[in-house]
Amino acid sequence: MFLWGKGSRKCEFSVSNSVTCFERRRSVGIVLISLAENAFRPLTPIEVNDSLPSFPPINPPVRILMGPGPSDIHPSVSAAMAAPTVGHLDPYFLKVMDEVQTMLREVFQTSNKMTMAISGTGSAGMECCVVNLIEPGDRMIACQNGVFGGRMADVAERAGADLLKLERPFGEVFSVEEIATAIEKHKPKVIGIVHAETSTGALQPLEEISKVVHDAGALLLVDCVTSLGGLPVEIDKIGIDAAYSGSQKCLGCPPGLSPVTFGPRALEAMDARTHKVASWYLDIGMLRNYWGADRAYHHTAPINMNYGLHQALRLVLEEGLVARFARHQLHHSALKAGLAAMGISYSVADPNCSLPMLNSVWIPEGVDDVAVRKQLLNEFGIEIGGGLGPMKGKTWRIGLMGEAASKSNVLLFLAALEQCLAAQGKIPEPGAGVASANKRYLET
Amino acid sequence: MFLWGKGSRKCEFSVSNSVTCFERRRSVGIVLISLAENAFRPLTPIEVNDSLPSFPPINPPVRILMGPGPSDIHPSVSAAMAAPTVGHLDPYFLKVMDEVQTMLREVFQTSNKMTMAISGTGSAGMECCVVNLIEPGDRMIACQNGVFGGRMADVAERAGADLLKLERPFGEVFSVEEIATAIEKHKPKVIGIVHAETSTGALQPLEEISKVVHDAGALLLVDCVTSLGGLPVEIDKIGIDAAYSGSQKCLGCPPGLSPVTFGPRALEAMDARTHKVASWYLDIGMLRNYWGADRAYHHTAPINMNYGLHQALRLVLEEGLVARFARHQLHHSALKAGLAAMGISYSVADPNCSLPMLNSVWIPEGVDDVAVRKQLLNEFGIEIGGGLGPMKGKTWRIGLMGEAASKSNVLLFLAALEQCLAAQGKIPEPGAGVASANKRYLET
Repeated sequence: MFLWGKGSRKCEFSVSNSVTCFERRRSVGIVLISLAENAFRPLTPIEVNDSLPSFPPINPPVRILMGPGPSDIHPSVSAAMAAPTVGHLDPYFLKVMDEVQTMLREVFQTSNKMTMAISGTGSAGMECCVVNLIEPGDRMIACQNGVFGGRMADVAERAGADLLKLERPFGEVFSVEEIATAIEKHKPKVIGIVHAETSTGALQPLEEISKVVHDAGALLLVDCVTSLGGLPVEIDKIGIDAAYSGSQKCLGCPPGLSPVTFGPRALEAMDARTHKVASWYLDIGMLRNYWGADRAYHHTAPINMNYGLHQALRLVLEEGLVARFARHQLHHSALKAGLAAMGISYSVADPNCSLPMLNSVWIPEGVDDVAVRKQLLNEFGIEIGGGLGPMKGKTWRIGLMGEAASKSNVLLFLAALEQCLAAQGKIPEPGAGVASANKRYLET
Repeated sequence: MFLWGKGSRKCEFSVSNSVTCFERRRSVGIVLISLAENAFRPLTPIEVNDSLPSFPPINPPVRILMGPGPSDIHPSVSAAMAAPTVGHLDPYFLKVMDEVQTMLREVFQTSNKMTMAISGTGSAGMECCVVNLIEPGDRMIACQNGVFGGRMADVAERAGADLLKLERPFGEVFSVEEIATAIEKHKPKVIGIVHAETSTGALQPLEEISKVVHDAGALLLVDCVTSLGGLPVEIDKIGIDAAYSGSQKCLGCPPGLSPVTFGPRALEAMDARTHKVASWYLDIGMLRNYWGADRAYHHTAPINMNYGLHQALRLVLEEGLVARFARHQLHHSALKAGLAAMGISYSVADPNCSLPMLNSVWIPEGVDDVAVRKQLLNEFGIEIGGGLGPMKGKTWRIGLMGEAASKSNVLLFLAALEQCLAAQGKIPEPGAGVASANKRYLET
């Protein structure tokens, strides 16, 4: 007779090939399971680790998410996430996929059939776009003025691109002229650029760049992880050939999905490939059959994440894109006014290129970055982001994305920040931040 | 003055650079937003598609998930998915990551530090393992006796492996001898094999194969998507070097995460790489810093999916692995007895290699595959799977995974199937299936 497990979890295995398990379930006391002869295919005896601590159930603190994403989640989105799971080929889920695609097309302002949600986070969407557009040896330009442009360059190199990295300092954006010069020099198949650089708060104008790219017969790939749902991302009007985003920024859904869209020129380039896409998981050729009319099984889509995105998109469209963009702009302007009154300035080089949903500001001299963010989190439940890369310790990144772009968040944050700065011995004019933000709100 | 949008969604943009938005929110009537001069950075006028249908909110039918996964979800897992989202570097989420890792180690029966959940579904886990272990030109053997072994071969080819495909017909498993012969012939760095082939219901014994693989100095990579949490997957005892699974099978969580584990030999092989991993998103070198002690930002983990997995793992360990494996075995034996009484037999070649959690059976002659599955779904809410690949139209795949492995599911399914077969003019002995299953339950 073998004995499996030890301590409170025991299982006996007799020579007669029958098995009896005595299991003390923590919640319901002793459970007796026995299996008759033949009903049982011998299992390998296993050792059970009885020292494993019993972890408490999930019970997160309620945060105000004013960092670089995830952003605040509307309760109806959380509720959708908890709806009953159905199969990935269930007629109900196929309908959800259709509706998610239709709503994503509206948010992307495109008629691209190949518009869908990749089963991974924004970086998976980035990789999906790059590996499907680039074959080993293909020429690409990656425009790098922050962490995410740099990431795109890394992804492109791994995909075997003959890469030209076009660099600008963090916080700056690219001019049409320098893009044109780089195109003439490198003659790329693809130019990748970040619309809203989450690491710096800079907004990249795209309309004229798109003309230059297409005049040269190249494809324009755009990172709109942070802009989609908070700023116009007009795929068709601007002529963007491929774009990717994330669920957890201005769309207001938890992280886990990456909306992508591919236009006709991008699909043509994929059809003309001579090598298989390096990634099976992200191969658009196969995903087209799953998200397309065939609904051919590819992988098991994250059902409940798609429920969440569905509801988040419903809220976006119910509010209306125009009103939503104006709301992001409004709260950004109030925050900016409040911060200015507290002597805090934006780190983006050109003030016309400040993102409304990601406010990157210089940390005042002599103020402890981490101490302030800790106090905001622990005393007020407010999360803001620290700087990334060369901006680490130098900037804060204050998100006003989706549900988080609200009067209450702006005013509470300014009031809380006043307290945190005072704790650092940097006392701003009392009430000045809130007063300036309120003035801005009353003007409108 | 420009007018944005049309129909019920309008926005005016005056020459004075101020903007007024009239937005009829579907739910709350007219909302007026106006932004004063300077507060507003002009947005591009956009066209809004007013013909977009208003989709109803998420309200899925309640299914009994007895297909190849996803499986039934315990209400406490759904509730965890809806818990408040926190930031991906929030101290609370870091604790959740730690606990998920600790519990995954227990379920995998390993002490591997590099045990974690990849932010994608099972196929992303497969790709993660392959692309991190294989460099272009590395020799690999992929054992293919079903759809998922075939998928691994495809992933390996894309990763540039010098690949030997070792094939067996669907429903069969590999002998130690043929693996040994193949190793001698191909001298691989990695041998990939599927523990529980979801497309055929076949269970691959691994213990002796592991010895042969390691005697040859190779690495053993195992797909345990369907087995983890329902059968012993003893990573350390068997000596598996790398393995991947999925959240939506016997672990009882919705799809969206892929638990993986890497042992010391696998990590050594990664450290000795001379090329960057083809995938940025799945690069274990970087994920080690995010899931390791550094917690260095890599990507934004799917927070709420990890909440769900955390609760699912709590339930697995609360039940106890031994009791859980015995439960899967018990209900499999009752289902098998019931099906036998209805004249339905298993498609796995060797009856000792039938998976308890995935019952692949021959569709009786003259019975319409799709009609039966539709009737089960529409009249009883029961989902089962059809055959994949060469088994399409020939087999049904009946899942008893996680929460779905229950007496109620087995008895209801047998009773419902009787009705569906009768609708096809194939009337089994009335009540025979349920009677045989009940007899098996009463014996135990």
